[in-house]
Amino acid sequence: MAEAYHGVLKKIINDPFDAVDEMLDGFVAVNADLVRLTSPRVVARLEAPRTPKVGVVVGGGSGHEPAFVGYVGVGFADAAACGNVFASPSPDVVLDAIHAADTGRGVVVSYGNYSGDVLNFGLARQLAEAEGIDVREVQVRDDVASAPKTEIEKRRGVAGDIYVFKCIGAMAERGASLDEVERVGRKANSATRSMGVALSPCEVPGSGKPTFDLPADMMEIGMGVHGEPGVRRGPLQSADKIAASLVDAILADMDGRSGHDFALMVNGLGATPHLDLYILYRGARRVLEAAGNRVVISHCGEYITSLEMTGASITVMDLDAELHGLLDAPAHTPRYVR
Amino acid sequence: MAEAYHGVLKKIINDPFDAVDEMLDGFVAVNADLVRLTSPRVVARLEAPRTPKVGVVVGGGSGHEPAFVGYVGVGFADAAACGNVFASPSPDVVLDAIHAADTGRGVVVSYGNYSGDVLNFGLARQLAEAEGIDVREVQVRDDVASAPKTEIEKRRGVAGDIYVFKCIGAMAERGASLDEVERVGRKANSATRSMGVALSPCEVPGSGKPTFDLPADMMEIGMGVHGEPGVRRGPLQSADKIAASLVDAILADMDGRSGHDFALMVNGLGATPHLDLYILYRGARRVLEAAGNRVVISHCGEYITSLEMTGASITVMDLDAELHGLLDAPAHTPRYVR
Repeated sequence: MAEAYHGVLKKIINDPFDAVDEMLDGFVAVNADLVRLTSPRVVARLEAPRTPKVGVVVGGGSGHEPAFVGYVGVGFADAAACGNVFASPSPDVVLDAIHAADTGRGVVVSYGNYSGDVLNFGLARQLAEAEGIDVREVQVRDDVASAPKTEIEKRRGVAGDIYVFKCIGAMAERGASLDEVERVGRKANSATRSMGVALSPCEVPGSGKPTFDLPADMMEIGMGVHGEPGVRRGPLQSADKIAASLVDAILADMDGRSGHDFALMVNGLGATPHLDLYILYRGARRVLEAAGNRVVISHCGEYITSLEMTGASITVMDLDAELHGLLDAPAHTPRYVR
Repeated sequence: MAEAYHGVLKKIINDPFDAVDEMLDGFVAVNADLVRLTSPRVVARLEAPRTPKVGVVVGGGSGHEPAFVGYVGVGFADAAACGNVFASPSPDVVLDAIHAADTGRGVVVSYGNYSGDVLNFGLARQLAEAEGIDVREVQVRDDVASAPKTEIEKRRGVAGDIYVFKCIGAMAERGASLDEVERVGRKANSATRSMGVALSPCEVPGSGKPTFDLPADMMEIGMGVHGEPGVRRGPLQSADKIAASLVDAILADMDGRSGHDFALMVNGLGATPHLDLYILYRGARRVLEAAGNRVVISHCGEYITSLEMTGASITVMDLDAELHGLLDAPAHTPRYVR
């Protein structure tokens, strides 16, 4: 058997270089009633849709579990392409996922806006198009801390991924055309904003070092899910102050700030207790409601993590009737049942 | 607003003494379609069952979220009684939960075997019986590391709680008698074994100190979910070695060791990445299968945590047809949909 991996943080793994494949092996065994591994780094719906529909592929680096594999299933993604930890899947893997999802009506690939993913998903799209498969890309850019509004195209994708993927998956499940599924994906992305706070780092298996250093009693506002620098560091604050700070920044970035219906997600990055997440949700909801809005769809838990990072993010989606219906539509995946 | 809480570990909370009530406030807001707060520390099913049935009450200390509130709903518990962090709910709170669950056919209360819970749930049972409500207690004792088999009555309840509660809840939902629901609870408890490993501590809000110290590169086998001493400390091992060590100890403690159908749960204690949990699941399953058994029901994720503790537990339930059917029966709660 493998020796223990000795990094800075204590992990329960075998050889770090086998970690992703062993994780996927375990994941599909646990969820064998819903998904299967169709090629080494591709998880797909167990059963193909009964009638042809637009295929939906999501993906990105591993280490964010339950993302992205946890969202493969009826009403959500048809396949997920998995990279190494915090690294984009290769174009071949994405192409395999496109093949797994394709039923002849075109495929939407959706992923967070990171340079490696943009490159590899884009190359895979070109390869698929050379085979005659019509592929559209929807890059998620929900992290308001990652670039100012004047450079909104540069923003990263974080927990808003889940809301955007869900709307795309629901629209595809309804039998909509490729154009319509793509349109809904872009609309969902435009309606979604997130911001997070990091308190302690994680460690990529095999790297032997944490992703960043942060002094005791300090937090970093807006830090990215791979340890990308945030907008500022400051003393650790109370849950209510963090909630206010994050929601205020999100609302200030949105066109609509009052009188709206919102979906609200509080996402734990890995090590933050569920107890803390519910307290943060409570604070965020109160800020949204105090501004004259309604929270009509709620999520609180671990949806897209960064291994054992301590911290949390708040995601808000501004709902019109169409997005509300899509987010509320039935889905059945390993991580998401509605 | 509250100042930040400064302990040894970084937390996203407000005043530590408000943490449980604020968490519950957030929890019922997120899950308002399924549950409600019927009194300050009692979470109950949103809608009473259509026809009278045996009531099911679960509970224990807070800080184990998603337990115990996450298991309230159709096909599972009717109400959960919540204590302070890592402290039993008071008898009054348990009595309130019994009232919330009672529809005239008696109530089963089930909880992990800890002295505080035994005392307070027992007092609540006496108070309820004085009112004419027939109450039965099922104490869960799945942790093989907490006492030798010769003192099996002293064992603590850990993640096996979830499997025992689920069987009780499914049997009650079928309309079975109080005697039958109690019988199934005791049978489920006898068929369930768990063992865990702790790698780093958590901190009870307000305590200002971690629950235990553990040197770098060391783990503690069999440590309890509140930091109770385990069976031994040793160097951190690989996931496969940990899996083998825990499953071997569990199988050695069981009457049946080969040719059985098992449910297998890998439960994260709080900070261990999902990636690690799936690798541990894979290892545990291989050990069970190598011994000639089948894994027919699987769970991997965070089901009962210890705040931000790093570590995981493995739970195995030896399934006959009755327990298999009960564990596999439909349920719909905030944490559990089947």
